[in-house]
Amino acid sequence: MKTLLYQKEMDLDTILRRNENEQDDIRNAVLEIIKGVKNDGNAALLYYTQALDHCKLTRLRVSETEIDEAFTLVPDELLTIMREAAENIRAFHEKQLETTWTYSPKPGVILGQHITPIERVGLYVPGGKATYPSTVLMDAIPALVAGVQSLVMVTPPDRNGQINPNILAAAKIAGVHEIYKIGGAQAIAALAYGTETIQPVNKIVGPGNIYVATAKKEVFGKVAIDMIAGPSEVLIIADETANPVYAAADLLSQAEHDEMAMPILVTTSAALGAQVVEEVYRQIEQDLSRKEIAKKSVDEYGFIFIVNDLNEAFELSNQIAPEHLELLIDNPMAALEKVKNAGAIFMGPYSPEPLGDYFAGPNHTLPTSGTAKFSSPLGVYDYLKKSSILSYDEPALAAISQKIAAFARSEGLDGHAKAVERRFEK
Amino acid sequence: MKTLLYQKEMDLDTILRRNENEQDDIRNAVLEIIKGVKNDGNAALLYYTQALDHCKLTRLRVSETEIDEAFTLVPDELLTIMREAAENIRAFHEKQLETTWTYSPKPGVILGQHITPIERVGLYVPGGKATYPSTVLMDAIPALVAGVQSLVMVTPPDRNGQINPNILAAAKIAGVHEIYKIGGAQAIAALAYGTETIQPVNKIVGPGNIYVATAKKEVFGKVAIDMIAGPSEVLIIADETANPVYAAADLLSQAEHDEMAMPILVTTSAALGAQVVEEVYRQIEQDLSRKEIAKKSVDEYGFIFIVNDLNEAFELSNQIAPEHLELLIDNPMAALEKVKNAGAIFMGPYSPEPLGDYFAGPNHTLPTSGTAKFSSPLGVYDYLKKSSILSYDEPALAAISQKIAAFARSEGLDGHAKAVERRFEK
Repeated sequence: MKTLLYQKEMDLDTILRRNENEQDDIRNAVLEIIKGVKNDGNAALLYYTQALDHCKLTRLRVSETEIDEAFTLVPDELLTIMREAAENIRAFHEKQLETTWTYSPKPGVILGQHITPIERVGLYVPGGKATYPSTVLMDAIPALVAGVQSLVMVTPPDRNGQINPNILAAAKIAGVHEIYKIGGAQAIAALAYGTETIQPVNKIVGPGNIYVATAKKEVFGKVAIDMIAGPSEVLIIADETANPVYAAADLLSQAEHDEMAMPILVTTSAALGAQVVEEVYRQIEQDLSRKEIAKKSVDEYGFIFIVNDLNEAFELSNQIAPEHLELLIDNPMAALEKVKNAGAIFMGPYSPEPLGDYFAGPNHTLPTSGTAKFSSPLGVYDYLKKSSILSYDEPALAAISQKIAAFARSEGLDGHAKAVERRFEK
Repeated sequence: MKTLLYQKEMDLDTILRRNENEQDDIRNAVLEIIKGVKNDGNAALLYYTQALDHCKLTRLRVSETEIDEAFTLVPDELLTIMREAAENIRAFHEKQLETTWTYSPKPGVILGQHITPIERVGLYVPGGKATYPSTVLMDAIPALVAGVQSLVMVTPPDRNGQINPNILAAAKIAGVHEIYKIGGAQAIAALAYGTETIQPVNKIVGPGNIYVATAKKEVFGKVAIDMIAGPSEVLIIADETANPVYAAADLLSQAEHDEMAMPILVTTSAALGAQVVEEVYRQIEQDLSRKEIAKKSVDEYGFIFIVNDLNEAFELSNQIAPEHLELLIDNPMAALEKVKNAGAIFMGPYSPEPLGDYFAGPNHTLPTSGTAKFSSPLGVYDYLKKSSILSYDEPALAAISQKIAAFARSEGLDGHAKAVERRFEK
C-alpha cells in the first residue's frame, strides 16, 4: 500500500492507472462470434457453448423444473435473506418511478413527457466461480419495477449443463421471465440479434468478462447497453475520529473482489493512515479466505492519500470519482453537498460498503473506473424511456407560424416552412 | 412511395431496411486519427484540419471578437426568433430538473439519491452546407439547465477558418462556454482525451457524419456519449378525418432532410392514402428547393401502410418506434396510452413536426432508426447523474448484520462479511 501526500498538481491518471488488456485480438474473436450467431442462430450458440464452455447442450432454455429443483438446493436461511433483500431493493427503487406529465404553458398549448418502460431487456449474469445472486436481484428488480414486460436472463452453464442454484433462485425471487444457458459474446449476440428460440431484446445490462464487455460495445446502437464495468473500487474519506479497524475492513471488502480492485483511503490524519496500513495487512492474514487476491490488490492498487483538510479530501475524491465512497467523518450528512462524483455514498461508521452490496436497497451496480463523472447507479430510469408530447391548437400555431417558417428557411429547409404555412393558406 | 396492406406477420426489418455503409475502412481511419490526437495533441488537430477540412488554422479557439462579429452578420429578425425559441426550450427543460431526495424507511436508516450535474460536456456541431443553429440551442440549453459548468462546442471551420455566424450566435444565445474550430473524428478525440489547449470532457453529445459517429462509439467508455443518430423519420397515423395536404407536407418536411430519411403514413383510410401519395408528388414539384433529396427519400423509403383500425396503426407504429410520431386523428390525447415507442408525439392537425424542430420547447434531438424502443429525447437527465445515499446507525446495522454476513459468505466473500461483523466484535 502506497502512502502519498496529496498535491493539487498530482498526475492522478498515472498514479492510479491499472494495466489494461490489449483488446484487438479479443475484438476480432468477438466479431466472429457475433457474425456466427447472426448467421446460424441456435446452431452457433450450441457450437460456441461446446467449444468455449465445454458443455454439450440439447436445450437452451432453463425449464420450470430446473428452477424448482434449485429451490430445494438453496438453504432456507439464504432464501429468506434473499427475499428480504429483494423487498428492500424493490422499496428503494419504487421511489425512482417516474410518471407521464403534461402542462399548458399558454392557452391552446399542451406540452409534456410520456413515460413508458422498455419492452424487452436482457440481463447477463457471469458464471464460473464467482456467482453473485445479489447482482441478479440488483439488476432484475429495477427492471420489473419499471414495468419491463420481458426480462430475459442469460448465464453460462457449467460442464454438466447446470446453472448455480443460488442464481436460479435469485432470478425466480426477482421475477425474471425467461432464462437461457448461454454465456460469453455468443449470449450478447443472441440477445441483440435473436435466434430461432430467443427473441431479440432492446437493452442489455449486467457485468461480464472482457469478451462480454467487448460484445456489448459492439452491439451498442442496435440495442442499448449499461456502462462497461471495470474493476471495483472504494474510496474512504476519514478524519481523526475514524476507527482504523473499520476503515481497514472496508478497504479489504473491495480488495477481495479482484486483484485489480482499488482500495483508497484519503485522510486528514497521517497517524490514522499508518494505523490503517498496519491493520489492513493484519486483517488479510487473520481472516480472509481470498488472501492472495486481496493482498495483490492492496499491494498494487492500494493507496493512502494524506490531505490537509476535508476540502482537499473531497477535491481528490471528486477527481477520482469512486464507485463506492465512504465518509468516516464527523457529521457526514453535512458534507453531502461536497460530493460531486461518486456511485454510492456510505455515511458514517455503521454504513459499511457491504450494507449496500446486499441489503439496504439502493443498487450495487455502480459506475466504476471514474465513470461516476458521467453515469449513475443502475436504476429504474435505465429501464424507462421518455417521449415528448406536443399539442398546439389553430390559434396557438397561427401566432408563431411565421417565426417557425423564418427559422426553417434560415437553415435552408423550406419544406419545414411550408408544412407550417400550408395550415394557413386560403 | 409504396403502399402496403399491414399484416401482423410482415417482415418490417426487411421492408424498412436502409442501405448501411460498410464501416471497416472508416473505423481504421478513425482509430488512426484518435491515436494521432492522443499522441500529438494540438499538432495533430492542426494537421488533420489542414488535411481534411483544407483549412490552415493558427488558433483553435473561437475568440470573443469572432462571436461579436457573428452577431453583426445575423439578421435581427432571426436573432429575435432564436432568443424566443431559446426561452421556450429553457422553460420546457426546467420541468425536467431533478433534485436530491432522502427518506427514512425505518428508525436509524436514511436512504436517498444525490443529484449532480456532469461537470464538463462537449457538443459536436456539424459544418458544411447543412448548418443547424436550432440544434445548437436544443443540445446546449438542457446542459446549462442541468448546471453543467463547462459546455464546450466543437465545429469544423470552412476553408477560410470561419464558422457559420448563425451557429456562433446560437451558441452565444444558448450560453456555450468555449468554442473550438475542429471537426470530424479529430474533434471527438480532442474532447475525449484533451490536448494542450482543450481540457477533456466527461460526455460528448451531438450529431455528425459517419466519421464522427464512429469516433464517438470508439471513445464510449472513456466518456459518455448520446445515441448514435441515424437518418430522420416521421410516422403519421391518420384516420379519415385527416387533411391529406397537411399529411403530405409533414411527410416532406422529413423527406427533405436526407435521401435516407423515411416518411411513413399509417392510415385506416385507403382513400386518404391515395390522396396523400398524389399530394406528396405534387408538393415536391410545386415548392421544395431540396426537390431531389425529398424525391429520392419518398421514392426509396416512403411508405403508406393501410390498416384495419387504429389499434393496428399503433401496433405497427410501436414496432417501428419512429423518431417523430404525428397523430392526425380524432381525439389524439385519448390515444396517448397506446404509444409505447416514439421520440416525440405531435398531437392533432396544428402540431406539425417543424413546430417541435424549432420552437415549442421539447427537444428536437430524438432517437432515430427504431432506437426509441430504448432511448429518449435529449434532455436535462442526460446531463445529470445520481449517487445513492446510505446511512445506517449502530442499532439499525446490528439488526441486519448477520443477514448481510450470511449472504456475503454464500457468495464466497468473507471480507464483506467481516467488514460488517467487526463493528460488533467485543
